[in-house]
Amino acid sequence: MALIVQKFGGTSVANLERIRNVARRVIATKLEGNQVVVILSAMAGETDRLINMAMEATDGKPDGREYDSLVSTGEQVTVTLMAMMLTSMGHQATSLLGFQVKIHTDNTHKSARILDIDSEAISSELNKGHIVVIAGFQGITKNNDVTTLGRGGSDTSAVAVAAALKADACDIYTDVDGVYTTDPNIYDKARKLKKISYDEMLELASAGAKVLQHRSVELAKIYGVPVYVKSSFNYEDGTLVTKEDSDMEKEVVSGVTYDKNQAKVTIVRVPDKPGVASRLFSPLSDRSIVVDMIIQNASIEGYTDLTFTVGKKDVKEVRSVLDLVAREIGAERIVYDEKISKISVVGVGMKSHAGVATKMFESLAKENINIQMISTSEIKISCVIEDKYTELAVRVLHDAFGLDQER
Amino acid sequence: MALIVQKFGGTSVANLERIRNVARRVIATKLEGNQVVVILSAMAGETDRLINMAMEATDGKPDGREYDSLVSTGEQVTVTLMAMMLTSMGHQATSLLGFQVKIHTDNTHKSARILDIDSEAISSELNKGHIVVIAGFQGITKNNDVTTLGRGGSDTSAVAVAAALKADACDIYTDVDGVYTTDPNIYDKARKLKKISYDEMLELASAGAKVLQHRSVELAKIYGVPVYVKSSFNYEDGTLVTKEDSDMEKEVVSGVTYDKNQAKVTIVRVPDKPGVASRLFSPLSDRSIVVDMIIQNASIEGYTDLTFTVGKKDVKEVRSVLDLVAREIGAERIVYDEKISKISVVGVGMKSHAGVATKMFESLAKENINIQMISTSEIKISCVIEDKYTELAVRVLHDAFGLDQER
Repeated sequence: MALIVQKFGGTSVANLERIRNVARRVIATKLEGNQVVVILSAMAGETDRLINMAMEATDGKPDGREYDSLVSTGEQVTVTLMAMMLTSMGHQATSLLGFQVKIHTDNTHKSARILDIDSEAISSELNKGHIVVIAGFQGITKNNDVTTLGRGGSDTSAVAVAAALKADACDIYTDVDGVYTTDPNIYDKARKLKKISYDEMLELASAGAKVLQHRSVELAKIYGVPVYVKSSFNYEDGTLVTKEDSDMEKEVVSGVTYDKNQAKVTIVRVPDKPGVASRLFSPLSDRSIVVDMIIQNASIEGYTDLTFTVGKKDVKEVRSVLDLVAREIGAERIVYDEKISKISVVGVGMKSHAGVATKMFESLAKENINIQMISTSEIKISCVIEDKYTELAVRVLHDAFGLDQER
Repeated sequence: MALIVQKFGGTSVANLERIRNVARRVIATKLEGNQVVVILSAMAGETDRLINMAMEATDGKPDGREYDSLVSTGEQVTVTLMAMMLTSMGHQATSLLGFQVKIHTDNTHKSARILDIDSEAISSELNKGHIVVIAGFQGITKNNDVTTLGRGGSDTSAVAVAAALKADACDIYTDVDGVYTTDPNIYDKARKLKKISYDEMLELASAGAKVLQHRSVELAKIYGVPVYVKSSFNYEDGTLVTKEDSDMEKEVVSGVTYDKNQAKVTIVRVPDKPGVASRLFSPLSDRSIVVDMIIQNASIEGYTDLTFTVGKKDVKEVRSVLDLVAREIGAERIVYDEKISKISVVGVGMKSHAGVATKMFESLAKENINIQMISTSEIKISCVIEDKYTELAVRVLHDAFGLDQER
């Protein structure tokens, strides 16, 4: 008897009919002789509806504790509906909320981190032969405050529960049927990968691929949880996210991805003195604004230009903070550019293959796509380009690295 | 500094604009120097929406535990919105759910009874100077299962919290502005009562008046909590529900009420043997079906007719149970009549005034309204009549007892 964790996203439980389809799939897994733990997101659109209410109620500044308790109702609705439906279909099921499982988190509201998961309540229900249906996205602090794990947090809930239960499998059912070499909506030659390493998946996620929440992959890597991404709408094979193996290293590049949600901020003519960067970035991190790429040019005559990217959604807040700071540190001006996108190629093979960067730059140059910023990691190269070239760049790089060919 | 508990019903928090109006009223109470605890219902219509989903998901038979956890989200939404709104209006507030307060109940899902309320979490927030916003209608069992208190349960939450905190006042804001001598929709001479005793309120509630949940009045009586019923839409005086006093005894009758939700069940020609009544009624109480009036005629030749009333909503289930039992006990047949209504007159003065019943029967007879069943308590007389005469009967009795005159 295996213990299987299955997570279904918002589009998979968008209405009662879809919840019923998921219930059938869960029952099928149970009937194969497995213990089943189901993790659910809120119905598609519900979390946004709740967030909009919170924004409207508070002129856009909801208290974090109340916000979390509000939006967590979305998952409470789907798990209770699922559990009662399973029971009425003849398979006893119990829903468990964050506080009932005891999914302990820190108290960073809106993007809490899981500290530990008590497996007792889950195991007790499993031992009764019940299917357990757990609300994703939510947790509880030691003071009994409800927290949420940030967008896509249900993936993290699923992996964390799988790790806590030492589950045999963690299946993430979503509206895509696996991890592709690139976005199939942009390039029809995109190919589904059978397997991808945790590190590649992490880089893809941070580079804008939306398949799994970044933290869920981090957790999966730490606890060695094999995560199988597949579609809840068909029965095709998906993609296994797992430990790096020799197969993977044969591939120079596994995927090309893009992120259109970044904006570029350039602080022009900053006096090149110690402490300037921290003056600029600490007020941003105080506000939990994530800064992605940072580039500082060589100093000329005691002045330098400093460029970084932040999420487009954060630009307004960045402005309100930095316009003042920039004056205080004696910078000339700040230039904001929202018309950019970030293109990345990712692959563990890069570690042992030279020339990947060169090939990337040449391929973009051939199409006259100007590179505005570059950043690299061990297994990823990212370039910021003008956003209108996004799709072209994706296709060019996908071809250049031969990603359409099965290996 | 007084401690005020204020409860607002579903129509008072039906949308963000109304929630804002309630917030203003709460802030006004706070600014008068009081500590304020707010109890809220779900937005009007929301509980029904959730119940409908549960019914649709399970062919009308939702598991009680899951049902309660589902419908409790309605209050979770209003209390979190209220708390964040109060905070954004400059008055720090904290929402508390059933499990956060620790409103312990038994595990009778859908109509749980409160066992005790831990005042620690509430007091701790009040001591910080916060307004506390508590989800009505919900509680938690000792196993951490979410429960709900039945329709109108938020009234009971409010009174129980007021009792636990030894609050100075418990104000129930609703969509009516007090307790009337009868339903103003039926008779425009209905008069608002300044004061009414717990016992009268209990009889009015069980006789069909919808102002307060029955159990909330029971609790208020036990703990001596003065409950002030008023409108959330205006600032007029309401009605105080309190201990009986000499003023009240001057009134022979305080109110006339009706209940159109009852149906009459007659078991015809039941063998008059010991144990028959229990054979009939115990399967009903096993299913938590409330039987209201019961009449058994004198036995003739070893047979009797037995008549009782149940809620119209329960008739289907009663049929499914009793059709079998009736055969087993050798009854001739069962007659169901849904075209009835129950008219009641209520007043503590009855205890010391003779002739109330006679006056009631005469007044109905004068209008040729036939009385099908009669039941009496110390301070109430109820008659079952044909439902088409309901409004006429209410007006006739209201006039007969001079209820339109202020005393």
